[in-house]
Amino acid sequence: MSSSKSNNAAASEKCLSLDNINPQFIELEYAVRGPLVIRAGQIEKELQQGVKKPFDQVIRANIGDCHAMGQKPITFLRQLLALTMDTTLFDSPDYPEDVKKRARIILDGCQGQSVGSYTDSAGIEVIRRQVADFIAKRDGAPCNYEDIYLTGGASPGIKSILSLVRAKVNGKRPGVMVPIPQYPLYSATISEYAMNRVGYYLNEDKNWSLEIPELERAFNESRKTTEPRALVVINPGNPTGQVLTRENIVDVIKFAHKHKLLLLADEVYQANIYAPNSKFYSFKSVAYEMGSPYREMELCSFMSTSKGYLGECGIRGGYMEVINMCPQVKAMLTKSITASLCSTTAGQVAVSALVYPPEKGEPSYEQYIAEKAAVLDALKERAELVYKTFNSFEGFKVNVVQGAMYAFPQIIIPPKAIAAAKAKNMAPDTFYAFELLESTGICIVSGSGFGQREGTYHFRTTILPQTDQLKIMLDKFQTFHAEFMKKYK
Amino acid sequence: MSSSKSNNAAASEKCLSLDNINPQFIELEYAVRGPLVIRAGQIEKELQQGVKKPFDQVIRANIGDCHAMGQKPITFLRQLLALTMDTTLFDSPDYPEDVKKRARIILDGCQGQSVGSYTDSAGIEVIRRQVADFIAKRDGAPCNYEDIYLTGGASPGIKSILSLVRAKVNGKRPGVMVPIPQYPLYSATISEYAMNRVGYYLNEDKNWSLEIPELERAFNESRKTTEPRALVVINPGNPTGQVLTRENIVDVIKFAHKHKLLLLADEVYQANIYAPNSKFYSFKSVAYEMGSPYREMELCSFMSTSKGYLGECGIRGGYMEVINMCPQVKAMLTKSITASLCSTTAGQVAVSALVYPPEKGEPSYEQYIAEKAAVLDALKERAELVYKTFNSFEGFKVNVVQGAMYAFPQIIIPPKAIAAAKAKNMAPDTFYAFELLESTGICIVSGSGFGQREGTYHFRTTILPQTDQLKIMLDKFQTFHAEFMKKYK
Repeated sequence: MSSSKSNNAAASEKCLSLDNINPQFIELEYAVRGPLVIRAGQIEKELQQGVKKPFDQVIRANIGDCHAMGQKPITFLRQLLALTMDTTLFDSPDYPEDVKKRARIILDGCQGQSVGSYTDSAGIEVIRRQVADFIAKRDGAPCNYEDIYLTGGASPGIKSILSLVRAKVNGKRPGVMVPIPQYPLYSATISEYAMNRVGYYLNEDKNWSLEIPELERAFNESRKTTEPRALVVINPGNPTGQVLTRENIVDVIKFAHKHKLLLLADEVYQANIYAPNSKFYSFKSVAYEMGSPYREMELCSFMSTSKGYLGECGIRGGYMEVINMCPQVKAMLTKSITASLCSTTAGQVAVSALVYPPEKGEPSYEQYIAEKAAVLDALKERAELVYKTFNSFEGFKVNVVQGAMYAFPQIIIPPKAIAAAKAKNMAPDTFYAFELLESTGICIVSGSGFGQREGTYHFRTTILPQTDQLKIMLDKFQTFHAEFMKKYK
Repeated sequence: MSSSKSNNAAASEKCLSLDNINPQFIELEYAVRGPLVIRAGQIEKELQQGVKKPFDQVIRANIGDCHAMGQKPITFLRQLLALTMDTTLFDSPDYPEDVKKRARIILDGCQGQSVGSYTDSAGIEVIRRQVADFIAKRDGAPCNYEDIYLTGGASPGIKSILSLVRAKVNGKRPGVMVPIPQYPLYSATISEYAMNRVGYYLNEDKNWSLEIPELERAFNESRKTTEPRALVVINPGNPTGQVLTRENIVDVIKFAHKHKLLLLADEVYQANIYAPNSKFYSFKSVAYEMGSPYREMELCSFMSTSKGYLGECGIRGGYMEVINMCPQVKAMLTKSITASLCSTTAGQVAVSALVYPPEKGEPSYEQYIAEKAAVLDALKERAELVYKTFNSFEGFKVNVVQGAMYAFPQIIIPPKAIAAAKAKNMAPDTFYAFELLESTGICIVSGSGFGQREGTYHFRTTILPQTDQLKIMLDKFQTFHAEFMKKYK
C-alpha cells in the first residue's frame, strides 16, 4: 500500500494520469519552492547521513522565512497566542496584564469564548475592528471593519480576489498585469486559474521603478488576446526591494482608473523600509488624498504577519482590505470564502498582535519596542551589507535594497558558462544557482523563477541570515563567484 | 472610502459587477453558512440591542462547532499548543513532562526550532510520521508518511484533490459522485470548479444506506453529459449520521474499481460512533484486506481535528492520506500545494495531539482519557436523546444517529404550510426553519441545503448543545412544532 509499491502498478490501471488531470497543475511553477529548494532539502539529508561536502550546512536564502534563519519571535505575540490557547495561564503572574487584557478581548469575541470555535468567515469581528483602527491611524483616512477580511497569510486573500475576476470577457481570457520580476504566487495562481499574465517590466536601471509608458505598452499589447482586468503592484517590491514614491503611486492609480483595472496592492512589506529617503505610502491613503474619482475606486490591499518584524510565517496570519466594491459583488466574494469556513484563529490572534500592540505605559511596551527595533535594525544593517558586498563582485549589478527582505542582483554570466548550462538543458541563471548550491550550500532562487528581461540573468537572495551568518555566506559566495568566473571566462 | 459610500458610486464606474465576475461564485451555495445563519447573526445583534423576542438567545444548531456549544477543549492539546507558542513554558512546573517531550519533538522538526517558520508544504515531517504510525496502528496495514499531507482542516485537502481531477475528458465536464443528502462543501467546490455533480441517493428507509444499484443508476444516467471521475463517500455520514458496514464498503470499493473512479473517503467523524452495533472501518483498511487489485487502487482519505472529541474547529488542523497515486501525478498535486506555502503550524500541532496522545503511564494520560470519554459519552447520550425526542413529534421520521454529530429528520409539511412558503418564494423546509428561528431562536439548516428526494422535507440539527441546553432546545422545538402543525393543518 506504500508509494513505492504503487509505482509498480500499471499506469493504465490508474484513475489519474498526466493526460487526464487538471492541465493548470502541470503548467504552474512556484520557483521559491522549486527544484533548487528540493535539491537543498536532499543535500541537508545527505549531510545528516554523513556524506562529505565542501560545507557543513545549507543556508536557505531562498525564501523569506525569518524564524528559520534565527530571527526571534516577538514575546508579546507569543504570549498572546499562548494565553488564548491555554486559559489557565490567566492565573500566571508571568504574563503581563496588558497581554491578558488583549487575550480576554479576543476570547470574548469568540463563540463559546474559545479559539477552538469557527469564526465568521471574514474573521473575528473584534480583530477586524482592530485592523480597521490600525489602517485608519496609518492612513489618516476612514476604514470600515466590514471591508476587512482576515486571511491565512496574504496568499489566500490574493487567490480569492484573483478567483473573483477570473471570468472570460467578450470571449477573451481575463488578464492580470504583474511586474517582471514578480513574486511567483501571482504567476502560479494565474496559471492555476487559466488567466493570462500581462507582464510589465520594472526599470532596473532606475532602481526597479514602475513606469507608466511601460504599463501602457503592456496593456495595449495584451489586448489582442486578453481582456486586462486587474493590476498587481508589489510595494515594497518582491523580489526587487524597491519602495515606490508617492508620485509614482499617484500615476499608477490614474492608470488603473483610466483602464478600469482592479488594483491589487501587495503591501506585506510595509514595515520593512531601510533606505533613509524611502517611505511607505499605502495605495489607499494616496487614492483617498487624490479625491474623486480615485477615492471611490475599487482597491484590494494585502497584509501578512509573516513579514515585517513579526516574521511569523508558519502561523498563517494576514488580512485584506477590500474597498469600494459593488455590494453585490462583495457578497459573492464573502460567500466564496464561507465555503472554506474560516482562517485559523492562531493567525487571527497574530493579526491582533500586529495591529494592536502594547501602548506606551503598558507593562509589555518597553520590551515590545526593544524587540521590534532589534529586528528592524538588524534587517537594515543586512540590507546595506548585502548591497555593498554584491556590488563589489565582478560582473554584478545590484540596486539599493530600499525595503522588503531581498536583493535581486544582475549577474553577467560568461558565454562559456551559458554553453555549459545549455549542455545541461538549464537556464544559465539556474545553472549558476545550482553550482553555488552544490559547492557552498547556499540556496538562492534563480531570476528565471521571477521573470527578467530576455538575455539578463539574476537571482534572489533574502537578507535574513543573522548578521554573522550572512557575513560567512557572503564570503563563501565571493569565493565561489571568483572561481566560477575563472572557470568559465 | 467606507462601504456605504461605495454604494452610491455609479455601478458602471466599477471594475467588477455581477455581469463580469466569475460565474461560479454566483452559482455556488453553502447552506451551513447561508441565509438562515446570516439571519441568526442579525437576531443575536438585535437581542444585544434590547429588541424583544420570544427567546433570549440564539441556539446555533446549524454547524458542527463543538466549542461554540460549550464543549471544553482537551487540556493536553491546549498545553501542547501553548508550549510550542511560548517556549518559556518549558520552565513551568505546571506543564507535564510528556507534553514537554512532545512539544520538543515538534519544535525540533521545525526550521529554526520555531512554529513561526514555514513548514514543508505537506507539513512537518515528524508529525506526518506520527500520522502514518497512527493510521498503520488503526488499520493494521502499512502507511507511508510520504502519503500524508497536513491540511488546514479537511476542506483544503478535499478541494486540492477535486481541483486535481477537474480536467474535461473527451470534451465532457468531469463529474463527481456525491451522496444526496451531502455536505455542502462538495456541492460548493464542484460549482466553483465548474464540474458536474452526480448525485446518488442514500436510502432513508434503510437508515441512509448506500446501495450499489443506486450508484450504478446515477453513474449511468450522468454519462450523457459527464465523465464521472471521482466518488465521494462520507462515513460516518454528514448530515445523515449513518455508519457504513464493512460489507457495504467492500461493495463501494468494487464499484469504484469497476468504473475507474477516484475514491474520496471523508472520514472526519471516525471517532464519533454511538450505536452499539456500529463500528468504523476505514476505506483503506478494507481495500487493503481485499487484496489485489483493490489494494493498489488510488484512494484519498480525509481527517480533521475539528470533529471527533477534540472539536478544535477554529485551529484548522487536518490531514489527508493519498495512496497509490501515480508518482508524476502526486508530484503535480504536491506542486499545486506549494504555492499556498504551508498549512498553519497551530493546526499541525493539533494533528500531532490527535494522533500521538499521552500513553498509559505518562503523567497526562489519566486526565486525557477522562476528558476524551466525557466528550464522547455526552455526544452518545445526546445522539439518543435527539433521536428519541424527534421520533415522538407528529409527522417526524428520524433514523438512529449511529455516528457523526447530526440528525437529519424528515418532516411532513402540511399543504397549507407549503402554500404559505410558496407565497414567500421559499422552499417549504426553509420556510419551516425560518419560522423556527424567528419564534424560538433555534438555528437549523433546511434539507434543501444538503439535497433530498423531490417532495420530501428535512432539516439538519447538530447534537452539540450541552445536554441541559439540548433538553431546553428540544422542549422549545416541540412546542413550536405543535403550534406550527396546528396553524397549518
